[in-house]
Amino acid sequence: MKSIQTENYSIHFNSNCYSALNTHLKAINYSILFILVDENTHNFCLPQFIEQIETSCTIEIIEIEAGEEHKTIETCVGVWNALSELGADRKSLIINLGGGVVTDLGGFVASTFKRGLNYINVPTSLLAMVDASVGGKTGVDLGHLKNQIGVINPGEMVLIDTNFLETLPENQLRSGLAEMLKHGLIYSRDYWNKFSTDAISDYDNLIYESVIIKNSIVTKDPLEQNLRKTLNYGHTLGHAIESYFLSHPEKEALLHGEAIAVGMILATYISTELSDFPKSENEAIKKVIKRVFGEVTFSPTDYDAIIELLKYDKKNEHGNINFVLLENMGKPIIDCQVSNELIIKAFEYYRA
Amino acid sequence: MKSIQTENYSIHFNSNCYSALNTHLKAINYSILFILVDENTHNFCLPQFIEQIETSCTIEIIEIEAGEEHKTIETCVGVWNALSELGADRKSLIINLGGGVVTDLGGFVASTFKRGLNYINVPTSLLAMVDASVGGKTGVDLGHLKNQIGVINPGEMVLIDTNFLETLPENQLRSGLAEMLKHGLIYSRDYWNKFSTDAISDYDNLIYESVIIKNSIVTKDPLEQNLRKTLNYGHTLGHAIESYFLSHPEKEALLHGEAIAVGMILATYISTELSDFPKSENEAIKKVIKRVFGEVTFSPTDYDAIIELLKYDKKNEHGNINFVLLENMGKPIIDCQVSNELIIKAFEYYRA
Repeated sequence: MKSIQTENYSIHFNSNCYSALNTHLKAINYSILFILVDENTHNFCLPQFIEQIETSCTIEIIEIEAGEEHKTIETCVGVWNALSELGADRKSLIINLGGGVVTDLGGFVASTFKRGLNYINVPTSLLAMVDASVGGKTGVDLGHLKNQIGVINPGEMVLIDTNFLETLPENQLRSGLAEMLKHGLIYSRDYWNKFSTDAISDYDNLIYESVIIKNSIVTKDPLEQNLRKTLNYGHTLGHAIESYFLSHPEKEALLHGEAIAVGMILATYISTELSDFPKSENEAIKKVIKRVFGEVTFSPTDYDAIIELLKYDKKNEHGNINFVLLENMGKPIIDCQVSNELIIKAFEYYRA
Repeated sequence: MKSIQTENYSIHFNSNCYSALNTHLKAINYSILFILVDENTHNFCLPQFIEQIETSCTIEIIEIEAGEEHKTIETCVGVWNALSELGADRKSLIINLGGGVVTDLGGFVASTFKRGLNYINVPTSLLAMVDASVGGKTGVDLGHLKNQIGVINPGEMVLIDTNFLETLPENQLRSGLAEMLKHGLIYSRDYWNKFSTDAISDYDNLIYESVIIKNSIVTKDPLEQNLRKTLNYGHTLGHAIESYFLSHPEKEALLHGEAIAVGMILATYISTELSDFPKSENEAIKKVIKRVFGEVTFSPTDYDAIIELLKYDKKNEHGNINFVLLENMGKPIIDCQVSNELIIKAFEYYRA
């Protein structure tokens, strides 16, 4: 699979990853090479990753705890202190080896330590491969509010080695599928159709195609003025649902993709009501998404709390909550307002 | 005094400040206008500032505690949470009204909240007017290490209203003079000479000239690859001295300028030894700086601890501590290495 070269960074796949990395390490005389991992990628990904690196540079490993609940400023402070103690300077490189928590948090830590170190993302989860690590968004959560604190700063390169997917639990793999399905819905009916068959296979090519779509969108609109907003499809309600389940004492946390899957069914239903999205397709989409993700249980008492959380959405402007809707498959429209009544109707449609 | 227009932001002075601000507020339809203050600027600067603003926008005030010891990530978390609770969105504006702590921290908070809000700096201390608020450096301390966490991101504009200086205690005014003296040493003998007379007067024009010098340097080298490093003159040892006094249980904290004043005397002495800076001028410089700042007391037991702190300096690369030295007044050289023995000799020269 051919590497993708953008103005600011490059994306390499599988066998090309390590030659690109080693060429980069040879070209730039880094002082220390830090690899940020969590406990899982420390065990399951780091050994084979390190084996591929050719450098005479000192390598230091920094480990954080795994899981979205550790994507916090407190974890950043721990990593910043570790960098200080291990002598990181502006000529150091940080390699983030992990899922979205490691790449988002590690990108933020690197972008802010001594006002900015170089960094490279090596996503090990499907979600991070097709979404988190491409486009330069970095960030951490503030309390239960997702990604409230961050900057946009692409690293030097993204290395997508799909062999790491073999280390991934089934539910984590599925979580990444939500963003790929989204790429179909907002950008390409052809791509969507590849998921509407019973068995999903040939992940390598599907990932490649998703990265092409995401990269083409963020390259055209890096600062999220218009087109990039379409990547938020399903995320307005999806993020609120994710936050709600994360903070609720009696509910089990949802994975990001599981929450976004629900958000996309809700957004597609709302699209039939507000922007004439074809009702027949809507049914088919719900079926495909539910086949992949199963059903999340909601009760009417959850609705208000989820709607309440919408007011913290990063895409809000002037007090308006901005939804992305679809006029048709591959034809998104941004900055749509949706009434609470219609949101509740959408939840009822989801449960039906 | 004419406004200064750079590629990314503009700097306005005195009477021009408020017309520029009000024109900006009219042009951009902000959702909410946040003013960040500390307890001092809340009392002494906010009332006259608010009086000048013409807007129909909601104004919210966020107050932090005054003082360098509050320039922390914990304070950022407090401000981020306040922004969340008060409904800040990406169309909100943050105005930082205060000294360097407020402008540095407020700039960082704005640059990272929801991945970046617009902000405007209104420096109220001399130090912030001539240094902190120009050039887009934002940041907070990590433990006792100064400005370890931050980004480079200039705000929309800087408003320098020298009337605020009347609210400033004498020692704070003096603290700002250190950076102005530095601008003379690294950039202009003519400018330096304006400080070598007995009484310093006409602050307005001196400030204007300092801002011109600083802005001309950061515009030529925004990312601190070479020329901008010269602004670090006196800061390598100065920051270490500042950190040392801040963390020492028995010493009274020094103001930034007081520590930098010592650092500049040390750096100038080192320049006579390593880069042929004229010895006669060195004596005269020490005299001028000591006349303005008086004497800080050191004992030989302090030296090692201060030298130890140098290893955390943000400008270090590959384990080298990089000093700026002078070949002559207005002729700085960057990336110089200095032995610990010579640093100790410089301290002895300072005390002599």
